[in-house]
Amino acid sequence: MTSEPPAGIRQILDDARASGRTLLDPASARAICQAYGIALPGDGLATSADEAAALAAGFGGPVVLKIVSEDIAHKTDAGGVLAGLADEAAVRAGYETVLANAKQYRPDARIDGVLVQQMAPAGLEVIVGAVTDPSFGKIVAFGIGGVLVEVLSDVTFRLAPVSDADARSMLGSIKAAKLLDGVRGGAAVNRDALAAVVRAVGRIVSDFPEISEMDLNPVIATADGAIAVDARIAVDFTPRAAHRRPPHDEIVTAMNRIMKPAAVAVIGASAEAGKIGNSVMKNLVNGGYEGKIFPVHPKAESIEGIRAYPSVKAIEDEIDMAVFAIPAALVPGALRECGEKGIPGAVLIPSGFAETGNVEAQEEIKRIGEELGIRLMGPNIYGFYYTHSNLCATFCTAYTVRGQVALSSQSGGIGMAIVGFSRSAGMGVSAIVGLGNKSDIDEDDLLAFFEQDDNTQVIAQHFEDLKDGRAFAEVARRVSRTKPIIALKAGRTSAGARAASSHTGALAGNDRVYDDILKSAGVIRAYALRDMLEYARALPALPTPKGENVVIITGAGGSGVLLSDACVDNGLTLMQMPPDLDAAFRQFIPPFGAAGNPVDITGGEPPSTYRNTIQLALEDDRIHSVILGYWHTIITPPMVFAELVVSVVEEMKARDIHKPVVASLAGDSEVEEAAEFLYRHDIPAYPYTTETPVQVLAAKYRWARGAGLT
Amino acid sequence: MTSEPPAGIRQILDDARASGRTLLDPASARAICQAYGIALPGDGLATSADEAAALAAGFGGPVVLKIVSEDIAHKTDAGGVLAGLADEAAVRAGYETVLANAKQYRPDARIDGVLVQQMAPAGLEVIVGAVTDPSFGKIVAFGIGGVLVEVLSDVTFRLAPVSDADARSMLGSIKAAKLLDGVRGGAAVNRDALAAVVRAVGRIVSDFPEISEMDLNPVIATADGAIAVDARIAVDFTPRAAHRRPPHDEIVTAMNRIMKPAAVAVIGASAEAGKIGNSVMKNLVNGGYEGKIFPVHPKAESIEGIRAYPSVKAIEDEIDMAVFAIPAALVPGALRECGEKGIPGAVLIPSGFAETGNVEAQEEIKRIGEELGIRLMGPNIYGFYYTHSNLCATFCTAYTVRGQVALSSQSGGIGMAIVGFSRSAGMGVSAIVGLGNKSDIDEDDLLAFFEQDDNTQVIAQHFEDLKDGRAFAEVARRVSRTKPIIALKAGRTSAGARAASSHTGALAGNDRVYDDILKSAGVIRAYALRDMLEYARALPALPTPKGENVVIITGAGGSGVLLSDACVDNGLTLMQMPPDLDAAFRQFIPPFGAAGNPVDITGGEPPSTYRNTIQLALEDDRIHSVILGYWHTIITPPMVFAELVVSVVEEMKARDIHKPVVASLAGDSEVEEAAEFLYRHDIPAYPYTTETPVQVLAAKYRWARGAGLT
Repeated sequence: MTSEPPAGIRQILDDARASGRTLLDPASARAICQAYGIALPGDGLATSADEAAALAAGFGGPVVLKIVSEDIAHKTDAGGVLAGLADEAAVRAGYETVLANAKQYRPDARIDGVLVQQMAPAGLEVIVGAVTDPSFGKIVAFGIGGVLVEVLSDVTFRLAPVSDADARSMLGSIKAAKLLDGVRGGAAVNRDALAAVVRAVGRIVSDFPEISEMDLNPVIATADGAIAVDARIAVDFTPRAAHRRPPHDEIVTAMNRIMKPAAVAVIGASAEAGKIGNSVMKNLVNGGYEGKIFPVHPKAESIEGIRAYPSVKAIEDEIDMAVFAIPAALVPGALRECGEKGIPGAVLIPSGFAETGNVEAQEEIKRIGEELGIRLMGPNIYGFYYTHSNLCATFCTAYTVRGQVALSSQSGGIGMAIVGFSRSAGMGVSAIVGLGNKSDIDEDDLLAFFEQDDNTQVIAQHFEDLKDGRAFAEVARRVSRTKPIIALKAGRTSAGARAASSHTGALAGNDRVYDDILKSAGVIRAYALRDMLEYARALPALPTPKGENVVIITGAGGSGVLLSDACVDNGLTLMQMPPDLDAAFRQFIPPFGAAGNPVDITGGEPPSTYRNTIQLALEDDRIHSVILGYWHTIITPPMVFAELVVSVVEEMKARDIHKPVVASLAGDSEVEEAAEFLYRHDIPAYPYTTETPVQVLAAKYRWARGAGLT
Repeated sequence: MTSEPPAGIRQILDDARASGRTLLDPASARAICQAYGIALPGDGLATSADEAAALAAGFGGPVVLKIVSEDIAHKTDAGGVLAGLADEAAVRAGYETVLANAKQYRPDARIDGVLVQQMAPAGLEVIVGAVTDPSFGKIVAFGIGGVLVEVLSDVTFRLAPVSDADARSMLGSIKAAKLLDGVRGGAAVNRDALAAVVRAVGRIVSDFPEISEMDLNPVIATADGAIAVDARIAVDFTPRAAHRRPPHDEIVTAMNRIMKPAAVAVIGASAEAGKIGNSVMKNLVNGGYEGKIFPVHPKAESIEGIRAYPSVKAIEDEIDMAVFAIPAALVPGALRECGEKGIPGAVLIPSGFAETGNVEAQEEIKRIGEELGIRLMGPNIYGFYYTHSNLCATFCTAYTVRGQVALSSQSGGIGMAIVGFSRSAGMGVSAIVGLGNKSDIDEDDLLAFFEQDDNTQVIAQHFEDLKDGRAFAEVARRVSRTKPIIALKAGRTSAGARAASSHTGALAGNDRVYDDILKSAGVIRAYALRDMLEYARALPALPTPKGENVVIITGAGGSGVLLSDACVDNGLTLMQMPPDLDAAFRQFIPPFGAAGNPVDITGGEPPSTYRNTIQLALEDDRIHSVILGYWHTIITPPMVFAELVVSVVEEMKARDIHKPVVASLAGDSEVEEAAEFLYRHDIPAYPYTTETPVQVLAAKYRWARGAGLT
């Protein structure tokens, strides 16, 4: 790894800028590639057969000869091109032939000489490139050439620069990755060489941000190496505004005061029911907020029984955060007062900013916030909840059931769905946050806060765009090592992105870019709202699996089949049952129960069969996770099953055995009560579905693998 | 289309059988292909330059010359092969060269002449083949050659013989279908010619069932035609037992007596609570079964207050169906008595047959059934429900909520999940049927019954295998034209299939075969248990859409984005909003509401805005389906929204406007009540998910498209 960019490239780019180029000439592109160690076919100008032979010998392998003359436009017509010259004699003879043909074609042509070009070896055609993404900045692409990229869009992306591990993961991330291992008995390509090309491209665009786009297409990958046959480099010298990003410590300090304030001002507090400023007050008071509340109202003496102030400036106490419940037009003035008062955070509920086309108003408050050192949440949000201090800084309904998962949403509707789902499922949360127009505080600010918030162990975020995808990926990569991050990226499809763009004015890129970069940052992606909610609910309940071996224990063979399908769909590994373990399970199940995995205990079994087999699965170190398929019978009714499962799991916990256990319940509607009971005891359980329990377990696995824990 | 197989092929196959071949020699394979009009490269033996030139002229295009001599094993070493001879002079010269080289190589060689072979033109390499599937019989495969088939398994299947429409649909069913339209500016291939090759392969394997496998690989497809470069034909003369299948009328007559019996015998009826024979009796009595019940018990006088008989033979009345609740060992004897009594159907609840490895016992009852003309349901089942006569012929809990959807399951666990989900969701059903080991009655028997059952409008079936996939596909293709069929095929993945195979002993094939054949039979495939249940619940409620134009109306922009994503994921078309319609919607929404589709009415709107925009969408003929995204607000609370939606939809129905309307509800837990209210009024509505409403609408579309209605 060079840390200093190679010399000479600055000059090439300065020349390109001076001449107004947007695409570098081939020689310049070539020079840049070579400076970063990317192999290209050799070439050189020969003015004699001797020189031609020497050049060819230097390259090795066959060469192409091409006449070089400004007077001969169509070289091929002139007999000025000869390909496939493999030995010295052929090169020498070819040199004379090309020259003679050219002279015969146009006797008066001024001839500079003959270009000797190394021919690319036969091998696998791949594409390595880089583009500048509006959200992620420089990103590197890799794909197999030809129809796979063109017709099937089989390509993968990573942030530039690319580490060696990431470069290698790219080679394995395309659908046709098998081709790299050799086709039809051919040799595998040299992955070291290919990974080196990917890294070099990442370094080029990182070292020189004015390189906006780059294509090595094709790169010929062989068992020996990788050679870029064609290099194309585009440049863009337009300066880009850097995204403002305070230092990490400042972010954390401010976010702690905003999210866990000791004192809150409500600007626009109101005594009038139905008004937002009244709902906010009621939620703070009735929610049982543990800090001090300071209503701000031009005239009122008190609101909801609490002394009111005409302005934040009239409050003597230190204020950590102000909730705004005033019309958009009044926000700038009130914000300036917050600045004067030294309030570090504003929660801007009002709408009427960029989402209604009023971009200027949003720019104005953004400027004020930057100027006066106030972090802004919103505008155009429902506010936020932080349950561990009973804080409901929102005009929506109060919610204070404590748990370990923090959720955020860009959209208010999705925020309300989070509240409704949580209440209905009894899902404890640490926080629910609305980000709305994201004039300032965004997803990565929240990540930085939740990272160091002991009340939060899992983070789930809905967003339509990332204003600074690079910052998000960097923070997420660090945070996801210790706390799972679930992302629901809306606007995945072009239709969805169109809707997103009309909604927020945000740009949506190729969804594959998000997919790859979120994954490489260790983020668990949810592709559906309901999936995000189910993952958010289940992940805090599930211990981290210690390995990949999953075992299904089922009373319903039919559920076992569907659970197996779901395991494969979701990338889980059904353990190959070792003979001794198989024999151990067989001790407990009827002789016609199915061998292997799923362990099919069959339908008519008493509670003891469930208990024995589950205990065995939890006790055996080779098994890392357990999926239960319950079948409602008279001999083992739903609640009996649920209680025995909880009891055996608790016994194991007391013996320090912690494994993820999930359950699918097939039966009459009594199974719903059993599922709730199980879930209350940290065993995610679901009636009438064989997919959801597997999906949530798989989400935990995706996280654990990304964090290097499984 | 020839109806008579070409002459000569029978002789080729007889010769192959006589010589014990399993793979036909190339000349025979060639002859069969040519007899069915499949073009192959021309070839012929020349013994003079004149003959060689004449052959080459006859083929057109370049040829290869190959020396033919038993004494020259390595033709190439002998200089005995010359390729790419494009004109008469080259062919004549080449003939002499090849001959001279051979004579020089081995002067004493006996030379038969020179083989003149047409060279395949440059074009797109595709694969056309056929295999014999254990469930579907002869099936035809099509794929693009090279890495697409080998690495990405990009291949599609249909039942043989293949109609012209099916052959053309195959060309469009592969992921890389775009390649057929020409690559990098190249010409499109001739689809007529390619479809003709696919049809010919389908006819070959259909006409000659002993042809077990066939490969044309590659077929070169060009703008002019399609030419099979290599043909491989495998044969298998082992006779196959035909699957027993009664004539359609017999099936319907028997199934009607079984499913809608006027009189039912319960063999093994019991007065002892907890016994299966008691549960069945109670369910029949308490469920309110409208027909006559005849308990059969060796000694009892009466059971559950109904006169009991020592044997079915002691009953004077005609009996339509007997439910068996006796141990497996007693089944054969009781079945013989049913035969003597003339009972046409037996519902075999007992287990202890093939599922426990007791294949012989199952073969025995199957033989008895065939011999005595009794159709068997099961064994190893929970029985069945037919709500429209309050018939609960099962030991599970009674369920008699009437509706239009019939469900069946191969597995008992899945059957119980169906009952539980139905009860919980208040889903009306016409029937729930357990098929278990499927010794006789299977999915296509049920399809034949439900097809003519006016109480059933939608059919949903869970299965792990299809004993006779071909019969199923044929019946399903007909039935699906009028009644949607939903199929949950378990054992999709190899892990799932392994579980399926340990469960039922059924063979599972490549899932893509099921996927393609079910789809071409008009069947809507569900890939998850919960999806099958949701489709079963929603489809009867949704009118058939009259066109592809879907419009989203949403109060939550964020829901709009996720709903759009879901539309694209599920193959729905978001209508491009015409300017006049856009303007019409804009009349009702705030100026900052989003244009186009989704129609974003924004969050703070009163009920009238929902009402006006929904009414407009229902009234405008260009819009065919409506997806609603509700956002819980104080100004339009959940039940207000639900009631206004129902009211406007009902008004439109009164004006004979019937369009599918589905809803996604984002909000606090009160939205659950609103969703239930909407669903009770035939508007499928779901809280906390933007995916399920779109999925069920898309399922209706998949059906309507398959049936040619949309």
